[in-house]
Amino acid sequence: MRIKVINPNTTESMTRTIAAAARAAAAPGTEILAATASTGPVSIEGHYDEAISVIGLLEAIREGEQQGCDGYVIACFGDPGLLAAREMTRAPVLGIAEAAMHAASFVATGFSVVTTLGRTRIIAEHLVHAYGMGRHCRRVRATELAVLELDDPASDARRKIVNECRRALDEDGSGAIVLGCGGMADLARELTAELGVPVIDGVGVAVKFIEALAGLGIGTSKRGDFAPPLPKFYTGRLSDMAFQAPGKPSAP
Amino acid sequence: MRIKVINPNTTESMTRTIAAAARAAAAPGTEILAATASTGPVSIEGHYDEAISVIGLLEAIREGEQQGCDGYVIACFGDPGLLAAREMTRAPVLGIAEAAMHAASFVATGFSVVTTLGRTRIIAEHLVHAYGMGRHCRRVRATELAVLELDDPASDARRKIVNECRRALDEDGSGAIVLGCGGMADLARELTAELGVPVIDGVGVAVKFIEALAGLGIGTSKRGDFAPPLPKFYTGRLSDMAFQAPGKPSAP
Amino acid sequence: MRIKVINPNTTESMTRTIAAAARAAAAPGTEILAATASTGPVSIEGHYDEAISVIGLLEAIREGEQQGCDGYVIACFGDPGLLAAREMTRAPVLGIAEAAMHAASFVATGFSVVTTLGRTRIIAEHLVHAYGMGRHCRRVRATELAVLELDDPASDARRKIVNECRRALDEDGSGAIVLGCGGMADLARELTAELGVPVIDGVGVAVKFIEALAGLGIGTSKRGDFAPPLPKFYTGRLSDMAFQAPGKPSAP
Amino acid sequence: MRIKVINPNTTESMTRTIAAAARAAAAPGTEILAATASTGPVSIEGHYDEAISVIGLLEAIREGEQQGCDGYVIACFGDPGLLAAREMTRAPVLGIAEAAMHAASFVATGFSVVTTLGRTRIIAEHLVHAYGMGRHCRRVRATELAVLELDDPASDARRKIVNECRRALDEDGSGAIVLGCGGMADLARELTAELGVPVIDGVGVAVKFIEALAGLGIGTSKRGDFAPPLPKFYTGRLSDMAFQAPGKPSAP
Amino acid sequence: MRIKVINPNTTESMTRTIAAAARAAAAPGTEILAATASTGPVSIEGHYDEAISVIGLLEAIREGEQQGCDGYVIACFGDPGLLAAREMTRAPVLGIAEAAMHAASFVATGFSVVTTLGRTRIIAEHLVHAYGMGRHCRRVRATELAVLELDDPASDARRKIVNECRRALDEDGSGAIVLGCGGMADLARELTAELGVPVIDGVGVAVKFIEALAGLGIGTSKRGDFAPPLPKFYTGRLSDMAFQAPGKPSAP
Amino acid sequence: MRIKVINPNTTESMTRTIAAAARAAAAPGTEILAATASTGPVSIEGHYDEAISVIGLLEAIREGEQQGCDGYVIACFGDPGLLAAREMTRAPVLGIAEAAMHAASFVATGFSVVTTLGRTRIIAEHLVHAYGMGRHCRRVRATELAVLELDDPASDARRKIVNECRRALDEDGSGAIVLGCGGMADLARELTAELGVPVIDGVGVAVKFIEALAGLGIGTSKRGDFAPPLPKFYTGRLSDMAFQAPGKPSAP
Repeated sequence: MRIKVINPNTTESMTRTIAAAARAAAAPGTEILAATASTGPVSIEGHYDEAISVIGLLEAIREGEQQGCDGYVIACFGDPGLLAAREMTRAPVLGIAEAAMHAASFVATGFSVVTTLGRTRIIAEHLVHAYGMGRHCRRVRATELAVLELDDPASDARRKIVNECRRALDEDGSGAIVLGCGGMADLARELTAELGVPVIDGVGVAVKFIEALAGLGIGTSKRGDFAPPLPKFYTGRLSDMAFQAPGKPSAP
Repeated sequence: MRIKVINPNTTESMTRTIAAAARAAAAPGTEILAATASTGPVSIEGHYDEAISVIGLLEAIREGEQQGCDGYVIACFGDPGLLAAREMTRAPVLGIAEAAMHAASFVATGFSVVTTLGRTRIIAEHLVHAYGMGRHCRRVRATELAVLELDDPASDARRKIVNECRRALDEDGSGAIVLGCGGMADLARELTAELGVPVIDGVGVAVKFIEALAGLGIGTSKRGDFAPPLPKFYTGRLSDMAFQAPGKPSAP
Repeated sequence: MRIKVINPNTTESMTRTIAAAARAAAAPGTEILAATASTGPVSIEGHYDEAISVIGLLEAIREGEQQGCDGYVIACFGDPGLLAAREMTRAPVLGIAEAAMHAASFVATGFSVVTTLGRTRIIAEHLVHAYGMGRHCRRVRATELAVLELDDPASDARRKIVNECRRALDEDGSGAIVLGCGGMADLARELTAELGVPVIDGVGVAVKFIEALAGLGIGTSKRGDFAPPLPKFYTGRLSDMAFQAPGKPSAP
Repeated sequence: MRIKVINPNTTESMTRTIAAAARAAAAPGTEILAATASTGPVSIEGHYDEAISVIGLLEAIREGEQQGCDGYVIACFGDPGLLAAREMTRAPVLGIAEAAMHAASFVATGFSVVTTLGRTRIIAEHLVHAYGMGRHCRRVRATELAVLELDDPASDARRKIVNECRRALDEDGSGAIVLGCGGMADLARELTAELGVPVIDGVGVAVKFIEALAGLGIGTSKRGDFAPPLPKFYTGRLSDMAFQAPGKPSAP
Repeated sequence: MRIKVINPNTTESMTRTIAAAARAAAAPGTEILAATASTGPVSIEGHYDEAISVIGLLEAIREGEQQGCDGYVIACFGDPGLLAAREMTRAPVLGIAEAAMHAASFVATGFSVVTTLGRTRIIAEHLVHAYGMGRHCRRVRATELAVLELDDPASDARRKIVNECRRALDEDGSGAIVLGCGGMADLARELTAELGVPVIDGVGVAVKFIEALAGLGIGTSKRGDFAPPLPKFYTGRLSDMAFQAPGKPSAP
Repeated sequence: MRIKVINPNTTESMTRTIAAAARAAAAPGTEILAATASTGPVSIEGHYDEAISVIGLLEAIREGEQQGCDGYVIACFGDPGLLAAREMTRAPVLGIAEAAMHAASFVATGFSVVTTLGRTRIIAEHLVHAYGMGRHCRRVRATELAVLELDDPASDARRKIVNECRRALDEDGSGAIVLGCGGMADLARELTAELGVPVIDGVGVAVKFIEALAGLGIGTSKRGDFAPPLPKFYTGRLSDMAFQAPGKPSAP
């Protein structure tokens, strides 16, 4: 099985962190293709960054279709472009926030999200509602770390994350923690051991859930709003983004 | 006052329909700048089209900031890129679905949305929940018209729309209709007269609500998640999208 | 255009504050008729006061219909009698809480309400749910000021309001403030300047939104529950309240 | 124990129907005082009627306080003035919609409301949400009967109500019926026998629930928003409505 | 009238506390049969305890049917087995959490639950949502008392409960308190007097509400999911639990 | 890895169907232990059956702990005893309704559940709300098949199920189907092929999701309400159900 894990930002070092977590999680027969968006922001820290990052994400999905991928992971905690990506393929596509939140709901009645900048909390909160996690998610907490600080060994990121996790356990009544950024992927197992509760990284969970779905022959529905994009012209610099179904030209 | 009304798809004839509705609504002192996305799909009929249309939309916002616009209208019923656009400016930004639904809630306890393709119903339904309209929106109905049929005088669009409106009034218990596509903008007044209930076009409402907010000195908040995008590098073909605050370079 | 702004309490000085805010907001061609309820409580600080204030409010709507008004603003933050008023007219009717909350949702993903007595918080909370603002309204805060203190230059009202606003911004994660009383209407622009976020007064917003709707030919639906009250006898001291459609007697 | 059952409309014959249902339900030691509003509409069939009926209702509560009542029932399915009434007394106050819906939720996982005019459905729907009955109430159905037809032996009311009940049981998956008008109070027991499911009249239930609460020493809370109305002047023709706490004058 | 009040745990002393509260509440003609589960945990402090306690509860319902009971009270704040019990009988069945929460919603716009161990809070929160009390219940608070400490005169239970109640009134904006454990039943009247707000015990309320429903001829619906369990074999040690409708054998 | 799949009813033939689906889904290194409840109903078709089935389920979990299982699947669409089971183990526990609904939400924006008897629809609806699937689940449909008909080759079960699925796709706007009974487990792949949309069996999904979680070292949280049951005595015939933590006696 071949799973493409896509980093929607353009920072290669973060892709490496994400890829390592993906490979550590993957089953022996699963090949992980790690992709970095070819264009867009170096980090995603708000609605604007997120909106633009979708182009690089969708390009990577398209490439993955040519590469015969069996599933896709969107490795940014805002799950950008998730529904658009699902139109493009019959393979399952999961976002890491989606995967992590669902996994947390399987092992605890309440969880807290620990994420990066305060201004991104609303994005996580919107996803909580989109995924029906309103009763399970006790709180979305921000460490005020910039996304690129996570990858910087000189930063104090680990300590800040652990402290926010401890506050979450003490104050929120949560039984599990969801790590709120793809860049935190490597921390899951050690924080689980340190804090004594499940600390969940969405990259690993998404890879495993994709393996699960693909293994059962469950793919993205092609009926209704996830049917392939209708054939039509795209103009201008993004004209190449006109969707091309396998074997068919894009223009009507 | 200068308001930019943006068509996120790349079809000029649709921009003309939208612009006409905008100008018909605008106050005497309001200048309407009508913009067509410079790149992207010729029509927006799903998640994929919508995601890519955001680039052209944000470019138009950027240009509008240079043009000293006092407000922006996103003239596609999916309100694509709404939150991203709000990060870019201090001026108010409204989507036409947002405007139309709020206006409908001011004049009826229940309304129905009449839109284009069935596969886009879910997009409208997501907005209903995002805008808190779950109690007011009785139903989202699809005519199964393609977006570009609306602009085609040879099509049967008007008749199909009227029939769906009548079914909505009879079956849904609604007191008002929300027209679910920017391309229907020119139908509002005549359908209101024909059906005897408010039939609401979001283009006109958005223009008037922008005039209202700007006239009161109410602009998009710059605190929290609508603060300007943080300065950072963008790479690749969309590197020019790196946000540039007025007078400041984009890279840190 | 003629808009009637109604103060449902019987305190003339408060009507003057409200009228000044309304006139400051109104477009050049808009005439503001300011009305004070002819009967009822001198201030509205609970469910009981509010229930009784509705009579004076509906009388003012009735008078406004005879005066050919094009729209109505209910200038009390509980929006008393809103749905009853909508049955009486084809003109749009807005409450100031409704207007302010919707405007806040246009410019911020989260807002806090700052209102008067703690015992009135529940009224604002009920409106939050009625208007679908549950996701946008972060908190309803009380200053414990009596309504009539707002109009008293000797009181400490302004300082208490500003302090509560600051706490809201610090603690609630809100990007905007909604002023929770008609008597605070004059503070909006100066507090916006002082605090650096939109501080929204519903009186001004309601006037502008009425101008918007009326300008588009959008009036209150007359189908369903906003249809005129059915003709019937009313008895006793309020017998004059039997609804009289223009040109028709009230009794069947 | 003395319970006042108040008909907020001014039609004595309806008060008799309500009073009969109340007395049939009451325990041997319970005295039922039946009151008809002294002023207002002869029937309540919309928001407008309801708003004005509250005055007569509150007058009856006031009189009941002088009469030493131990509890109050608001016998109109819109439960008008419920929260205002609760400020006035330490005795429990129940609305018949409130009582009936809660009772239905005790005996079935789903119930349907069968009420009078279609235009009143929204009032019942608002109460469903106010009382948290969104999961239990399957549907609100209208017979299109006018309220005063219920009391008219020559009308076809009974047959229409039974037919709507049958449709509800067949189509809604409900296990119980809530009768949606005080004027239907006399039908509960016979329809229960005829249809084989609980058919619930809120008048009888409210009387029994009042007996229950009063018997346990549970009264309306006087802390927070149900504390007595603050002392203040009321002006104009309703000046007498200024709340007078027992033994205290109303003006400050 | 004969009402069976069932203690789903196997501690007789707690049954005595519950029975005393039930008898103090009951009307003169009501006989209270107090039953203790014949098997299961000595106290219920979590999901596991609760699940197993249901067997003893259902046995007691079965016995009650043979005893001609007119109603049943499940006297554990988790309301275990409520829906299963309702299948077994035509008599009304109420849980004490259900009864207490509904009663609180009749006398205050907001209430707080004060319960035992922190780990049981989630059970109360689930019931809040099941009963539609999400808007009324301000908070579920835990005293961290073990259930069996309540019955121990040497413990500090009363003081801890009172202190948590005071915190609830100060911090939650609640107008009433719901006692979150059957073992607190004897505290209701004295805490009401001491704190000056309704402090509600579900045992007494449930008894009175059963009297109310039974007195009106309102019983558990037998249509749909509360119809008697379908006849079928049960095997193993619980084979005797196969439901036997009065006069019919259990196996098909 | 060793996963125990538990049939909470006592019908061995159904366990075989479930086990076959589980083994077909399991990875090569996964051993499936299939267990049938030792006591309880032969089929689960309502609240009563479900409540009693929990005992056999919890016994099987206990046995599984002694067998060193790495995960558990509760193979009944009501997910009975789920939270109780999670207290007993550090291994992940999933219900088949939970697993299937989450999987469906990963591949479609809307799904319909097709289940057995109409009286069980409410159980599925309660789970929809418990799992936050209110926006995704379009409808719960019943075929009116008895659970044991599914296993009977002479019955018309397959045809009835397919027809209900087709109606769901046509009428509900769903993109996927969730099979609403463990006994339908063998139909998933063939119906997916026949209907052209994902038709999801929770048995296979639960097995794969358990493999996923266990493979990542994510187990049931032991903090808060999923901590092991507190040590205490259990009396009567179920005294053996007193929870015994590995290596510790059960009584305090």
